Amino acid sequence: MADDSESAGARAERRARFQPASGMVTPRFSGLASFMRLPVLDPAEAVGEGAGEGAGLVEIGLIGIPFDGTTTNRPGARLGPRAVREASTGTRALNHATGVAPYALAACADLGDVPINPVDAAETAQRIEAFYRPLAEAGIVPLTVGGDHFITYPVLRALGAARPLGLIHIDAHSDTDDAQYGGSRLTHGTPFRRAVEAGLLDPRRCIQIGIRGSMDAADERDWALAQGMRILTMEEVCARGLPEVAAEARAVVGEGPTYLSFDIDALDPAFAPGTGTPEIGGFTTREALHLLRALRGLDLVGADVVEVAPPLDSAGITALAGAGIAFEILCLLAERVAARG
Amino acid sequence: MADDSESAGARAERRARFQPASGMVTPRFSGLASFMRLPVLDPAEAVGEGAGEGAGLVEIGLIGIPFDGTTTNRPGARLGPRAVREASTGTRALNHATGVAPYALAACADLGDVPINPVDAAETAQRIEAFYRPLAEAGIVPLTVGGDHFITYPVLRALGAARPLGLIHIDAHSDTDDAQYGGSRLTHGTPFRRAVEAGLLDPRRCIQIGIRGSMDAADERDWALAQGMRILTMEEVCARGLPEVAAEARAVVGEGPTYLSFDIDALDPAFAPGTGTPEIGGFTTREALHLLRALRGLDLVGADVVEVAPPLDSAGITALAGAGIAFEILCLLAERVAARG
Amino acid sequence: MADDSESAGARAERRARFQPASGMVTPRFSGLASFMRLPVLDPAEAVGEGAGEGAGLVEIGLIGIPFDGTTTNRPGARLGPRAVREASTGTRALNHATGVAPYALAACADLGDVPINPVDAAETAQRIEAFYRPLAEAGIVPLTVGGDHFITYPVLRALGAARPLGLIHIDAHSDTDDAQYGGSRLTHGTPFRRAVEAGLLDPRRCIQIGIRGSMDAADERDWALAQGMRILTMEEVCARGLPEVAAEARAVVGEGPTYLSFDIDALDPAFAPGTGTPEIGGFTTREALHLLRALRGLDLVGADVVEVAPPLDSAGITALAGAGIAFEILCLLAERVAARG
Amino acid sequence: MADDSESAGARAERRARFQPASGMVTPRFSGLASFMRLPVLDPAEAVGEGAGEGAGLVEIGLIGIPFDGTTTNRPGARLGPRAVREASTGTRALNHATGVAPYALAACADLGDVPINPVDAAETAQRIEAFYRPLAEAGIVPLTVGGDHFITYPVLRALGAARPLGLIHIDAHSDTDDAQYGGSRLTHGTPFRRAVEAGLLDPRRCIQIGIRGSMDAADERDWALAQGMRILTMEEVCARGLPEVAAEARAVVGEGPTYLSFDIDALDPAFAPGTGTPEIGGFTTREALHLLRALRGLDLVGADVVEVAPPLDSAGITALAGAGIAFEILCLLAERVAARG
Amino acid sequence: MADDSESAGARAERRARFQPASGMVTPRFSGLASFMRLPVLDPAEAVGEGAGEGAGLVEIGLIGIPFDGTTTNRPGARLGPRAVREASTGTRALNHATGVAPYALAACADLGDVPINPVDAAETAQRIEAFYRPLAEAGIVPLTVGGDHFITYPVLRALGAARPLGLIHIDAHSDTDDAQYGGSRLTHGTPFRRAVEAGLLDPRRCIQIGIRGSMDAADERDWALAQGMRILTMEEVCARGLPEVAAEARAVVGEGPTYLSFDIDALDPAFAPGTGTPEIGGFTTREALHLLRALRGLDLVGADVVEVAPPLDSAGITALAGAGIAFEILCLLAERVAARG
Amino acid sequence: MADDSESAGARAERRARFQPASGMVTPRFSGLASFMRLPVLDPAEAVGEGAGEGAGLVEIGLIGIPFDGTTTNRPGARLGPRAVREASTGTRALNHATGVAPYALAACADLGDVPINPVDAAETAQRIEAFYRPLAEAGIVPLTVGGDHFITYPVLRALGAARPLGLIHIDAHSDTDDAQYGGSRLTHGTPFRRAVEAGLLDPRRCIQIGIRGSMDAADERDWALAQGMRILTMEEVCARGLPEVAAEARAVVGEGPTYLSFDIDALDPAFAPGTGTPEIGGFTTREALHLLRALRGLDLVGADVVEVAPPLDSAGITALAGAGIAFEILCLLAERVAARG
Repeated sequence: MADDSESAGARAERRARFQPASGMVTPRFSGLASFMRLPVLDPAEAVGEGAGEGAGLVEIGLIGIPFDGTTTNRPGARLGPRAVREASTGTRALNHATGVAPYALAACADLGDVPINPVDAAETAQRIEAFYRPLAEAGIVPLTVGGDHFITYPVLRALGAARPLGLIHIDAHSDTDDAQYGGSRLTHGTPFRRAVEAGLLDPRRCIQIGIRGSMDAADERDWALAQGMRILTMEEVCARGLPEVAAEARAVVGEGPTYLSFDIDALDPAFAPGTGTPEIGGFTTREALHLLRALRGLDLVGADVVEVAPPLDSAGITALAGAGIAFEILCLLAERVAARG
Repeated sequence: MADDSESAGARAERRARFQPASGMVTPRFSGLASFMRLPVLDPAEAVGEGAGEGAGLVEIGLIGIPFDGTTTNRPGARLGPRAVREASTGTRALNHATGVAPYALAACADLGDVPINPVDAAETAQRIEAFYRPLAEAGIVPLTVGGDHFITYPVLRALGAARPLGLIHIDAHSDTDDAQYGGSRLTHGTPFRRAVEAGLLDPRRCIQIGIRGSMDAADERDWALAQGMRILTMEEVCARGLPEVAAEARAVVGEGPTYLSFDIDALDPAFAPGTGTPEIGGFTTREALHLLRALRGLDLVGADVVEVAPPLDSAGITALAGAGIAFEILCLLAERVAARG
Repeated sequence: MADDSESAGARAERRARFQPASGMVTPRFSGLASFMRLPVLDPAEAVGEGAGEGAGLVEIGLIGIPFDGTTTNRPGARLGPRAVREASTGTRALNHATGVAPYALAACADLGDVPINPVDAAETAQRIEAFYRPLAEAGIVPLTVGGDHFITYPVLRALGAARPLGLIHIDAHSDTDDAQYGGSRLTHGTPFRRAVEAGLLDPRRCIQIGIRGSMDAADERDWALAQGMRILTMEEVCARGLPEVAAEARAVVGEGPTYLSFDIDALDPAFAPGTGTPEIGGFTTREALHLLRALRGLDLVGADVVEVAPPLDSAGITALAGAGIAFEILCLLAERVAARG
Repeated sequence: MADDSESAGARAERRARFQPASGMVTPRFSGLASFMRLPVLDPAEAVGEGAGEGAGLVEIGLIGIPFDGTTTNRPGARLGPRAVREASTGTRALNHATGVAPYALAACADLGDVPINPVDAAETAQRIEAFYRPLAEAGIVPLTVGGDHFITYPVLRALGAARPLGLIHIDAHSDTDDAQYGGSRLTHGTPFRRAVEAGLLDPRRCIQIGIRGSMDAADERDWALAQGMRILTMEEVCARGLPEVAAEARAVVGEGPTYLSFDIDALDPAFAPGTGTPEIGGFTTREALHLLRALRGLDLVGADVVEVAPPLDSAGITALAGAGIAFEILCLLAERVAARG
Repeated sequence: MADDSESAGARAERRARFQPASGMVTPRFSGLASFMRLPVLDPAEAVGEGAGEGAGLVEIGLIGIPFDGTTTNRPGARLGPRAVREASTGTRALNHATGVAPYALAACADLGDVPINPVDAAETAQRIEAFYRPLAEAGIVPLTVGGDHFITYPVLRALGAARPLGLIHIDAHSDTDDAQYGGSRLTHGTPFRRAVEAGLLDPRRCIQIGIRGSMDAADERDWALAQGMRILTMEEVCARGLPEVAAEARAVVGEGPTYLSFDIDALDPAFAPGTGTPEIGGFTTREALHLLRALRGLDLVGADVVEVAPPLDSAGITALAGAGIAFEILCLLAERVAARG
Repeated sequence: MADDSESAGARAERRARFQPASGMVTPRFSGLASFMRLPVLDPAEAVGEGAGEGAGLVEIGLIGIPFDGTTTNRPGARLGPRAVREASTGTRALNHATGVAPYALAACADLGDVPINPVDAAETAQRIEAFYRPLAEAGIVPLTVGGDHFITYPVLRALGAARPLGLIHIDAHSDTDDAQYGGSRLTHGTPFRRAVEAGLLDPRRCIQIGIRGSMDAADERDWALAQGMRILTMEEVCARGLPEVAAEARAVVGEGPTYLSFDIDALDPAFAPGTGTPEIGGFTTREALHLLRALRGLDLVGADVVEVAPPLDSAGITALAGAGIAFEILCLLAERVAARG
């Protein structure tokens, strides 16, 4: 994708091919629901098998990982990708707030779901990593919809293999536990500890925003701080205001390659009831959108929206929020792709 | 109604007749649910058939239009009037915030539903117009509960026939499309374009507040701006603050006759999940109430609350919000009626 | 399709191509939801454009018609196809009760949704007819998921154009009204009257099963009886028993080409709450399955399952019932296709 | 009502005045929801104040009693009348199964709700009795929608004051407890014991049908049997079949004046989840309808449908069942009224 | 428990200690919800640590296993035990249909939940087995509430260790798969294959009742039949009737020790929507109760009710059905305990 | 409790005994749900019967009062304690925002539910008072979960008997009515009027925060003001900001003993839909938490969270909010207990 030799015209033509179905022609409730009503593309075709590095047919791939096998509280996030796809049919081509038209900036497609094994986390981790490595090599920026938060770890194994990444992590929980239930180290409460341990993340370039509620023990937080990670609790967010929070996030991750992970439970349960471990006192969707819009221009190499659990939702508003957040992140990614050339 | 020759005493007596049933005597969950537990009045009786202009028996008429036949996304708003009636039984006689006691200021009644045809939009438009014309002639100020947003257009055909009106339009969407699905011009996405084209609205006295999300194409917005309409996106609302927004709305519509249209999807889906085309990042009910209270004193000639879709709701909070918004608007209308004398 | 010159081997190969994704490999909640997890095929490709009559690439096409614009009571059936697709992911390859393996008997694919216009019934009828005519010509047997019951009429315009069809119509309502709301003749209460009037159905080969509840007027029933249609009310069904009912149905339609229309409100609201006009006292799903299984061997040229309205559903059981009924019908159609050779 | 001197023509004229609004003209979801879309009539007007005995303006009165203050398990039945009114808008003029057209046989009206006191059972009992006495004197047959089952006791105080009545009581529970919580004697578990003690019911003409589940103690049952009441458990109902059950019910109550009380929890929770004390293993709606239809011709002097608790319902099917049961009972009452002449 | 030397008086005293809280004294919605409102007992105390074999303090232990980590479709059954406890507060002391008073026949207690590891099936299996072995040794008959169906396998490892058991398995699915997703052998689709392979069940004394729907492949069924297991599909159940089905079940298991496993998806989705893999066309609760009551007198050594998934439920009716089924099974177990002396 | 003679070591030991079950060992969805997963203690044991004043075994008691018999609008709060217990299993040991570890500061236990009589408010009031008096004498600080707001009055009869208390009352409604329905003086709309009249509260040390919506009549407010109570409407709260509101609350109650009562309808319906009388325009949970945290250091002698009505909730977010609010209040109480020494 975006190799230097491709002419601007060819690129535009390619992008024109990957446009969402228009809601003005076919209704939004019509047809199979792909992410953002985008064309569905086989991952193998997307990476342009046999072609060289950076030769992806599309520039951004939207991917579902329907796995919740490491959820320690209420399950259901395995049903997230399908529900977010459905809700995402309400998004349109042009962002009202920022003016960004993502599909004019980058060729985007729905690459389907990773073929996970719902009863085997270790095997699933391998499958996820194997799915994302070729995408990373082809230069396709992945926007993932989970699934529980565990899935971020194997995604980072693919994206951060070459060099540690920075992280903007918006969540109610730090997810930096060491182990749960007496030794289980691969759960949705541990991905960022595992990723830091494995050198996939540079902890000094990591920031967690919106942490709140109560903790079982301080270790989860203290370990992260000891690594040099920055934690902004919800209380600090409120005290300092979103502009300052965004500025600090930008300062922490700097100009290097950065991953963005959005746990839907960062939102207040009024805005996102459908998640396994809700915590009152969270973000509104309006604040979340403002925060994301303040992150324009960062070198984002991938992102995810996780922990949407449809069976726990009411009136589909959590999936709707997940889809809206995903669209806003997609605009960030598309701008970045376009900026890269 | 309110003709000059009527004595203040006669007027007070008439108003005393139209009081809501007291929740201190009969419980709020008891009996058939009329709007605000007000008396139900036949429209023909309300207009005082045979009497002269401005001879309405009541001063404000609450009316349902259970039509959603032009909904382009998820339907259900046809069930809105009944659900809002039910939820409105929780409103009482005295507004805590403003001190307004609407039923002391104006004689109000539930005039029932317009007899729509659910499978014929054109015929329904005619029936709506025919229902509202006599009310307008009798000087009865209509407060309508929809139904989808299309219904505002035929209401304006009745109210704006004499002269173009100003408009305060609170909504997530501009609803100024030209046509949908290759030529359908009467949908819930087009009422304000049709009304401007028909000279029912003065576009330079029109303001839209809360527009957000994404667009299929810029035409919807650009056309409105080209007519001279003012659009305040949600982002601008947040940046400038409600007092300034209200001030601008007042400035735009001025002292002339003005219509107020409140699409429930102006609210965030956390506050109003039960609507066909929800958009995250919207108003809280508290903000909506503050905004409405800042509009006291305008020359409002009618208003509506639309797009409450009960089958999509959860726990009835959208109908509850619709009823609360309607009560707040009713206070505005009653103050205006009383001010007119 | 199935032209005589095609060898049995080629046919088997073609069928092998159109198999549902296995739930033993990829989980049922994974990926985009197509009908029965079947491959998605463009209708143009399905009919084998340019090829001669009966040259369809597949033998059975599953199609969604997301239209509910003629619903006279509670809407929502436009969302039926997507919900039934989702629920149908739970069906598997081998029918436990009958031993039928439909995908071994006939090449089946999901042909997507008809591109309807949600606000224009007449135009939608034309689009539906235009979508089905090439399928009929290519010999592809359509299994449709609605949408409201109106959609059966334009489907019959395509399928019954050559000669009148017999009809097995399982429903709580006769849907043989003449007009509603003072002249509206194209509603979900009129399709079978229109189809008989247009000569698409042979009324003496039509049987309605499960009619119950109350009527506005006897005309709806008397007209049908006057045409020679057979009506079995729910009471008669109970009194005579399912074997006798099935035998009568077989006798009425005989060996000629027959259409099967299943309105989900034939089921009791306990089994199918998510429909616009539920009537208590209906079929259980077990009875419905038994009834359908007793129809093996008829010359079915098409079928539909209509009136699944997801916003009115609870726990998704109506969509689940719709999917299960559709699978059972698919088995009937596949056996017929295989029998034809 | 129905005094001998009234000519048949006058009676027909009166009945013609009280017809439900036609769903063919105005949609069923339109307007305020009265029982069966019937005209609403003030009770005082209904009884024809000042006129002599049997001088009621209507022959059957549909009445809501929104009281659940004696519920010992989960509350919510106070919201039953409004929900059943809403659901009853789906009933029409002509009974498909029996051919009965109730509004042609008897003048029927919605008489509104009894003005109960939600926090005072004793006072509420007095208000109920006071509401029903004039109706009884005017010869108006009441069809009541509760409310919890307690309300049957004060209704019987009005209807059975002149002579003890027979009783057909369809329910999962006997409701013949003596007292609960150490002395509370007026609860929804005691009405039939109170009524027998007060001589309002003749226990030897009382039959309970569908009793099931488990009991706290055998006293509840043993007391009833000792009085001579007949109890048919659900197991006996299943073993003997509905025709035999109906025959026994007819034999028990004989030709004397009889009251019919239908507790919605007689239905299985699949058919009526929205009730305070559901018991699995109950009637289907189809069985309930069959049972009721087998009771034609009895001398019914009143009836009720109780314990519909909308907040506990799903998809409104309990209210729908309540409305359907009420319609079927209304047909019984109307036939009886017509037979009386 | 029930060792020969214990006097009848001592036994009665012990049983008197373990009585459910009376709903006539404290309301059913009051207090922490234990199974059947029974006393909660620590498992260590229940087995009478240090005492000899058969020395359990209680005779029947109700136990929750909140594990759904091997669910291959929709999860949520981990929340089953708590929801069934809550619903079980509606059961009372005396069975209306059979006259059995279980708490007079056997000392029963709620032994709490097995301390499972939600993210590790193998470890959980060990914990379950370790929990049940001492109970089995103490002669305490376990009645388990799951959790997904996998949990039956480790329970059988404890109960069937001494000798193979017979099995009555009521379910929509055979759960005799070999492996899923390419090698996962411990899932909720495999427990009975594992148990037969391990010699915990005698396949010739196993019967599966209610199997229906569709299969991925015939192997699941053919393997079971090859072992000598009896499978009664739902179709055979309907064709032959419940009395004959029960007779065959009794014949298959004979007089030897037998385990009873009830998967809630044996019920139709109308009766039990809240389960991960619902199949239409299932049992009613009434049929299930009848079937269970026809199993009185068998040598039941344990039983379970599994796959109640509350997040997928509506109005709690699945948990209610689970509780009612559990109560009926408890009556069977209590009769057996009493018969043993 | 906490008598001077107890050594710090003994106190620490006692506190160590009363720790919540760790979610890192046993999952949060496992086992019977007690408040905050704390040990359950019999009230008699808690007060240390026979011991002297202040000799309670625990320092804070969490208690449920499942009574809603005086609810004048929609009922259901009787089911609140069980739902809040369930939701409270998500709270953990260490407060993220304040750093407070309540279980290290005070010995806390779940004391079960008051044995109320659901059909008798007067008797229930006596039982509540009788339950709380020994706790008060033993120095156990009660944190109560309702139940409707009436229950605060009998609690105050126990806690305020010795001297009038101050009050911080966070609510949408003043609950200072005199009587409802013509004379009923014990309802959930009257507790604070009764408490002031009885001298249990010092009105000049009472403040109500968040009052909003509409009133039946001004008396409710005017009476409170006339007594010297301070009322901060929601509008004033918004205008002045939370820090100023908290400061005023602190000033009003001063350093004297104070009771804290939190009606869940203080929250906006988006955050707490599950309550009987919701009012739009309320607090967010974030604001509520901030407000509570600003009340650290007051001399709180008891508190309650009332009006959580689970049947009216969606996705359990109201119970979740109730549990989160209760945890935050528990932190306040624990700090106070520890400060007292």
